[in-house]
Amino acid sequence: MGDLITDAVEGTLYYVPRSEIARIVGLKIDPVKRTEAFATLARLNTLYMVARAGSGHLGGSFSSLDVLAWLHLEEMDDNDVYFSSKGHDAPGWYATVIGLGRIAEDNLHKLRRLGGLPGHPDVGFPGIVTNTGSLGMGISKAKGMVVARRLQGKPGRIFVTTGDGELQEGQIWESLGSAANHHMDELTVIVDHNKLQSDTLVKNVSDLGDVAAKFAAFGWHVERIDGNDMVQVAQTFRKLQTVTGKPKVIIADTIKGKGVSLMEHTAMESDVEYYRFHSGAPDGGTYRTAAQELIARVNAQLTEMGVPPVAFETVEAPTRAAPPAGVQRLVGAYSAALLEHAGKLHNLVALDADLILDTGLIPFKNAYGERFIECGIAEQDMVSQAGGMALNGLLPVVHSFACFLSARPNEQIYNNATERTHIVYVGSLAGVVPGGPGHSHQAVRDIAAMKGCPELAMIAPCTEAEVAMAVQWALTRTSRNAYVRLESVPWSVPFALPADYRLELGKGCVLTEGTDAALFAYGPVMLSQAHAAAALLKAQGIGLKVIDLPWLNRVDAIWLADVVADVRRVFTLDNHYIEGGQGETILAAMAENGIAIPATRFGLEDIPCCGTNDEVLGAHGLDAQSLVRRITQVLGF
Amino acid sequence: MGDLITDAVEGTLYYVPRSEIARIVGLKIDPVKRTEAFATLARLNTLYMVARAGSGHLGGSFSSLDVLAWLHLEEMDDNDVYFSSKGHDAPGWYATVIGLGRIAEDNLHKLRRLGGLPGHPDVGFPGIVTNTGSLGMGISKAKGMVVARRLQGKPGRIFVTTGDGELQEGQIWESLGSAANHHMDELTVIVDHNKLQSDTLVKNVSDLGDVAAKFAAFGWHVERIDGNDMVQVAQTFRKLQTVTGKPKVIIADTIKGKGVSLMEHTAMESDVEYYRFHSGAPDGGTYRTAAQELIARVNAQLTEMGVPPVAFETVEAPTRAAPPAGVQRLVGAYSAALLEHAGKLHNLVALDADLILDTGLIPFKNAYGERFIECGIAEQDMVSQAGGMALNGLLPVVHSFACFLSARPNEQIYNNATERTHIVYVGSLAGVVPGGPGHSHQAVRDIAAMKGCPELAMIAPCTEAEVAMAVQWALTRTSRNAYVRLESVPWSVPFALPADYRLELGKGCVLTEGTDAALFAYGPVMLSQAHAAAALLKAQGIGLKVIDLPWLNRVDAIWLADVVADVRRVFTLDNHYIEGGQGETILAAMAENGIAIPATRFGLEDIPCCGTNDEVLGAHGLDAQSLVRRITQVLGF
Repeated sequence: MGDLITDAVEGTLYYVPRSEIARIVGLKIDPVKRTEAFATLARLNTLYMVARAGSGHLGGSFSSLDVLAWLHLEEMDDNDVYFSSKGHDAPGWYATVIGLGRIAEDNLHKLRRLGGLPGHPDVGFPGIVTNTGSLGMGISKAKGMVVARRLQGKPGRIFVTTGDGELQEGQIWESLGSAANHHMDELTVIVDHNKLQSDTLVKNVSDLGDVAAKFAAFGWHVERIDGNDMVQVAQTFRKLQTVTGKPKVIIADTIKGKGVSLMEHTAMESDVEYYRFHSGAPDGGTYRTAAQELIARVNAQLTEMGVPPVAFETVEAPTRAAPPAGVQRLVGAYSAALLEHAGKLHNLVALDADLILDTGLIPFKNAYGERFIECGIAEQDMVSQAGGMALNGLLPVVHSFACFLSARPNEQIYNNATERTHIVYVGSLAGVVPGGPGHSHQAVRDIAAMKGCPELAMIAPCTEAEVAMAVQWALTRTSRNAYVRLESVPWSVPFALPADYRLELGKGCVLTEGTDAALFAYGPVMLSQAHAAAALLKAQGIGLKVIDLPWLNRVDAIWLADVVADVRRVFTLDNHYIEGGQGETILAAMAENGIAIPATRFGLEDIPCCGTNDEVLGAHGLDAQSLVRRITQVLGF
Repeated sequence: MGDLITDAVEGTLYYVPRSEIARIVGLKIDPVKRTEAFATLARLNTLYMVARAGSGHLGGSFSSLDVLAWLHLEEMDDNDVYFSSKGHDAPGWYATVIGLGRIAEDNLHKLRRLGGLPGHPDVGFPGIVTNTGSLGMGISKAKGMVVARRLQGKPGRIFVTTGDGELQEGQIWESLGSAANHHMDELTVIVDHNKLQSDTLVKNVSDLGDVAAKFAAFGWHVERIDGNDMVQVAQTFRKLQTVTGKPKVIIADTIKGKGVSLMEHTAMESDVEYYRFHSGAPDGGTYRTAAQELIARVNAQLTEMGVPPVAFETVEAPTRAAPPAGVQRLVGAYSAALLEHAGKLHNLVALDADLILDTGLIPFKNAYGERFIECGIAEQDMVSQAGGMALNGLLPVVHSFACFLSARPNEQIYNNATERTHIVYVGSLAGVVPGGPGHSHQAVRDIAAMKGCPELAMIAPCTEAEVAMAVQWALTRTSRNAYVRLESVPWSVPFALPADYRLELGKGCVLTEGTDAALFAYGPVMLSQAHAAAALLKAQGIGLKVIDLPWLNRVDAIWLADVVADVRRVFTLDNHYIEGGQGETILAAMAENGIAIPATRFGLEDIPCCGTNDEVLGAHGLDAQSLVRRITQVLGF
């Protein structure tokens, strides 16, 4: 989690080709030394992939790469399976399997691109055995694999890495008991205990206490090692081959960012609160310093062994357009709005699940530290805590990414709703873009998942100004629960809301006039596509009335009848699956109110692709050009 | 959980009036003896309430009543708060607070009745501080209360009981860490460790291992006692008053059904696999034996203390109509269908979350024990395990109550869906009735919550015959995920499906002819109301075409246009919230396909009431009479 920052690296990028890695892998030398050299090369290629993609998780890829390299080079056989439960460390795994020639080498250049390497693991890609990226599911999935293999009489072991912050997820502990009860010694979990989670040190977010004692209490065989010491890694896996009757866990103490001095968390200045290399690409200078250190290290390693140095390839970083001027930053606007209201609403508390940076809570925490409750990666606990707070006089505002917030604590949100308390849920990173992290992070079913919670109104603002209105409404104009859906990606919008626009329940506003058709949308991304489509259609003589309706599950019937009275077709455009999205609400309201205008829904019809924002919008037919094509087709022009 | 069985007790019922309990509470005797007598009287009134209601949880109420009585009589002051996390033991709490005069005495006669005592705790009722009934949320909620009190500078302690089966829920463990990190010594959790969960012994479902070691590893102060020994109970709470700096847990070893010999789990014959008194009322003979034992005990206790015996009140049990002949039992039909397919589909495995009785899995387990996977009360783990199994060649069928299955592992279901595997989810106890357990168990938002899972088709059969078709479709006619929604309450349906009816994706069948309006519904309960309404309307000269559409999120556009071509109004009737229900899907499809017929949706518009089935349907305007009234009003007759 923590996956928003997209940086641009310029200049020359370095990678090591498969052929050179194959040469190292083929060396008849001490396996420990060989694997160390391999891990350094994998780090260089990981760095290259993330720098080129502009996003991705370096810190956790680096911390786990020594274990990963040993597993793949020395420990596992063809019957064994490896996957990462958190999935954030996918770049490190890609570098490993590309290095071993298991997937095509040109994938090195395609991280987080359409048709390339998914941002988080997806079974559509060769060698990936399960989809991860949302935390805490991996051990359960591995257990399912063990059950299947046992029933089928198939041999083999399952190796799963988890993060340490990930251990805050209840599902981890929910999954441990039956693995022990069923003596699943086929299963080895490696906790990449790099001491940092998305935002900062695990101990500052939600201290794990004695991790080894916890696993032992759940009946697991526990080893604790320095996970960046290849000798210990090698010895421990060898030892575990003889441990039977119990599932096994290796608590691997590692260093986040391991291998690049300036990225190692142990190099953090003591007064720096937040670690910089959890996700996102480094800047150009940092990239080159890091690459040079890795190149120097591997060549020193090779020279020491009397082996010729590695030949690197270079490539110029793809040029990236500078972000357009005047972008709308909804999360920033949210930060400001929350801060403003917090000054007046003294019972307001903000709850976070290890996404303080991405959900815009740092200003609030700095100003109202006592009223900031960091819950760690524990969404169910966070939401139920909010329930208890609301019952006792507080006004809780609950934050996470929309994909996690709507689904992970889904029943807990409903339970709170049945208490008729006032709680505000704020889900950021909503919608299909950014497309880089992939479908585990693309929140495109949150509207559906949140439906049917009594008196829960959902609002998706499209501009910074509308964010302020939405926050004001949720905090002061309702006494029940509300969901504010924030698209996080900074977006340049070609429209402005009418000067006299005020947020009213179930009503929206018209952004462009037209009588051939009306198109309802919400949020900056889709309204921008719609607005651009309207301009293109206008040039063809087609009038498209684009309507911002920020209410996702509420429509005022009178307003609706009025706003579509002069059009002959209605379109809806969801930044969400069509099923369960806003379009469903609007179309149902039309039928219910006798508005007999033919209607067509646009939105996601299948699992969202991973890629750049433009690639993803285009692939799903949701960019302005596609909308023009689809609208003219429906209208029969 | 496990809340389906409704039994009829006939004959004389016994209860002890408030005045007699007040006399005992006022005795100047050893507090331990006084509380023991109180607990016995509370057990008698608990037994009365459950017998009269015909349902409720006796076993867990009895096991926890000694702790509960001591807390309320001797330990807590006005600043302290108590609640049960599982909430199933509500009858015991009601008996306690009625005995103490904190709620009106006549509530004794209103368990699970409209306007009476809710089946599971609801904050709408005086003295209930939070809604529980779905497991695992209580410690989190208590933590939220602690945070609120600290911020507000309010004193007081929070006492929370949990079940032992409940400890299988991941949220329990997710909630423990931060309580320790924040030194929440205001919080005391009592684990009612009665060794049995819904179905049978905890150790057979999903053994908990060393519970004390687990809590200790999470940083809690742990005490372990005999929770039915009032001396130990008293001493332990006194000792905990001096323990500071840590949250505290009492592992209270108790006996399920404690106080009534034949209900005590320790009296289970070793060859009896399932405990009979988790939920549901006892039969008449059992009731009387139990009541006599409790009366004899309390009077022996009082006589020993030189106190006059208790004067009981008697009342005749309300007569209950015998279940009508020819009821449809969907869960039974499901059992049979699953068994049949399991014989042919050798990769089929069934997963259960401690509801083997209620989800109809006993025949499968008996026939295919190796392919039956009991997961315990661990829905997230169960669903992700199913994901791993499906990726490895098995065909998992995943079971729980619809309320839990759709919401608790909501993100896990989506994660599985993104792997495009074949998994069948079967949610029972769907819909607004039975109304006795209350809204934690009334699954009326499962359709919404499951929406937006790619390629997940949802089917709600209305008869045993349609169950067989639905199971066949889900297991053999799709290669993707599906959700089968089962209404569990045996229901007498006044209609039969057409002889030539076959299940086809997105299509349904016409049950009554009529051209004034069409009404779409699904499942036995609502289709029965609709069918009865049609008959009543026919007598008024109004023709209502009742249509069974078992597909909840799929509508065939051509079929839809055809089936409503001859009517002038469309109604939909959801056994679910209107928001996110089937009506939304149908109305959106109408608008999208140019079917310009005015439409009206019926379904739940607010949190469902608790009460008898008739009370609940009537209260929400969903019984046949209400439908007639509402339909004629809309049609303008």
